[in-house]
Amino acid sequence: MSGSACFKKCGSVLITGANRGLGLQLVDSLVNGGFSPGKIIATTRDPSAALKLHELAKKHPNIHIIALDVQSHESIQKGVEEVHQLVQEEGLNCLINNAGINVIANFHTVTAEKMIENFHTNAVAPLMITKAFLPLLKRAASRGACDPATMSIQRAAVINMSSALGSIELTNKELAGHFNWYPYRVSKVALNMVSRSLAIDLEDDGILCMAIHPGWVRTDMGGSQAPLSPEESVSSLLSVIGGLTEKDHGSFLNYTGEPLPW
Amino acid sequence: MSGSACFKKCGSVLITGANRGLGLQLVDSLVNGGFSPGKIIATTRDPSAALKLHELAKKHPNIHIIALDVQSHESIQKGVEEVHQLVQEEGLNCLINNAGINVIANFHTVTAEKMIENFHTNAVAPLMITKAFLPLLKRAASRGACDPATMSIQRAAVINMSSALGSIELTNKELAGHFNWYPYRVSKVALNMVSRSLAIDLEDDGILCMAIHPGWVRTDMGGSQAPLSPEESVSSLLSVIGGLTEKDHGSFLNYTGEPLPW
Repeated sequence: MSGSACFKKCGSVLITGANRGLGLQLVDSLVNGGFSPGKIIATTRDPSAALKLHELAKKHPNIHIIALDVQSHESIQKGVEEVHQLVQEEGLNCLINNAGINVIANFHTVTAEKMIENFHTNAVAPLMITKAFLPLLKRAASRGACDPATMSIQRAAVINMSSALGSIELTNKELAGHFNWYPYRVSKVALNMVSRSLAIDLEDDGILCMAIHPGWVRTDMGGSQAPLSPEESVSSLLSVIGGLTEKDHGSFLNYTGEPLPW
Repeated sequence: MSGSACFKKCGSVLITGANRGLGLQLVDSLVNGGFSPGKIIATTRDPSAALKLHELAKKHPNIHIIALDVQSHESIQKGVEEVHQLVQEEGLNCLINNAGINVIANFHTVTAEKMIENFHTNAVAPLMITKAFLPLLKRAASRGACDPATMSIQRAAVINMSSALGSIELTNKELAGHFNWYPYRVSKVALNMVSRSLAIDLEDDGILCMAIHPGWVRTDMGGSQAPLSPEESVSSLLSVIGGLTEKDHGSFLNYTGEPLPW
């Protein structure tokens, strides 16, 4: 079974920041690729503005759009209640922390406020969202159909959308010349530490956790010069994510499946 | 010449968070170790409460105590002006970003506010302080006495007090069992990315930049179980920092001088 096909056996997938970019493409590719999971819960800060997502949901009734502001504790709690109503006793199988921003600033233009803004959305929010959804993830992980020794998205998993720009080892003069983005790069290495720490805390519950780099993609964030289309990136991402096993727990992988250095 | 002795040939050293713990010990060991630099600028949020620092300064007139709240833009700007008055045309040779806090919280007790508080003090503040002191560091780096191809604390350097707990690679179940501190570990890996990025941006000005782990030390932060006394840690730290050259630019070293993984 190819990795992507594993999503078909997955009861529910939640994707944050699903109104555009990679988040929207993840929803689109899942429902249109012939490996649609039982329920796709697509979250966005403002559902009323998510026109493309509503178009998709009109055609595919397994897409559920819910409001979630990743920086708001109250909004996250409300989101958990709504998802609980949707998934009931089956729990949530796969949480994809995809929502992210790029507060562009170099050494000369960076401010404390810009650093904190990017850190909150890209690193703190995935941690707080994972905490909030833990009861639903645990419920999915503990269901009898699964071998308790295995880990996979069909059981329960937290996928953090990170970036190779968050690799300290890969940070060099050439890279920094193009992507001299202090707030973004620091937020992504912080997310990698969050991801690795979560892997330790979620292990006993059988919940897989890892970070993945989607490649440099032609989205609003990636810009028009990027080499990958959203379709290409997401096709590869879904294949890798769908095929994750316990050996990938706590890892940081490229969209092609190879490990990236911290 | 041993590493520590290099401080004697260093015109000025600024140490943040010098009122207690490792910061206070750094000041103490510098003035009492026979390798005192020209000027030691010891900063603390509230100089009126820094009794031990005042005792040291009474005996050693090359210690200058100034107020610096590392989270405050205005306080940092005021600190730069005061240091400018002290060092004049000679500039600042060595900036030690030592001030740090440990907002203890595990997976269950962590909040967004705790994450941001620790991140601000431990990762954002060193970046903003380095930016603010850049003109004084550049002045020191550009002075004629130095070989422009070399880097050292005698010329100009930024030393970031990091932690092995900020190493993603060293994060494992056993370690996390003892130090399951999300805000602290995430803030320190963020500081490492800041440090590596600063190394790229400061290189053309000949300013050395690196991150160092002081060991696990019996301070208020390290607790009484720690294996190292502040004197032992700082003796080793000063030897390593004093001996830094361009090969250490952008590095992450243990207090013993060995490289640590990101």
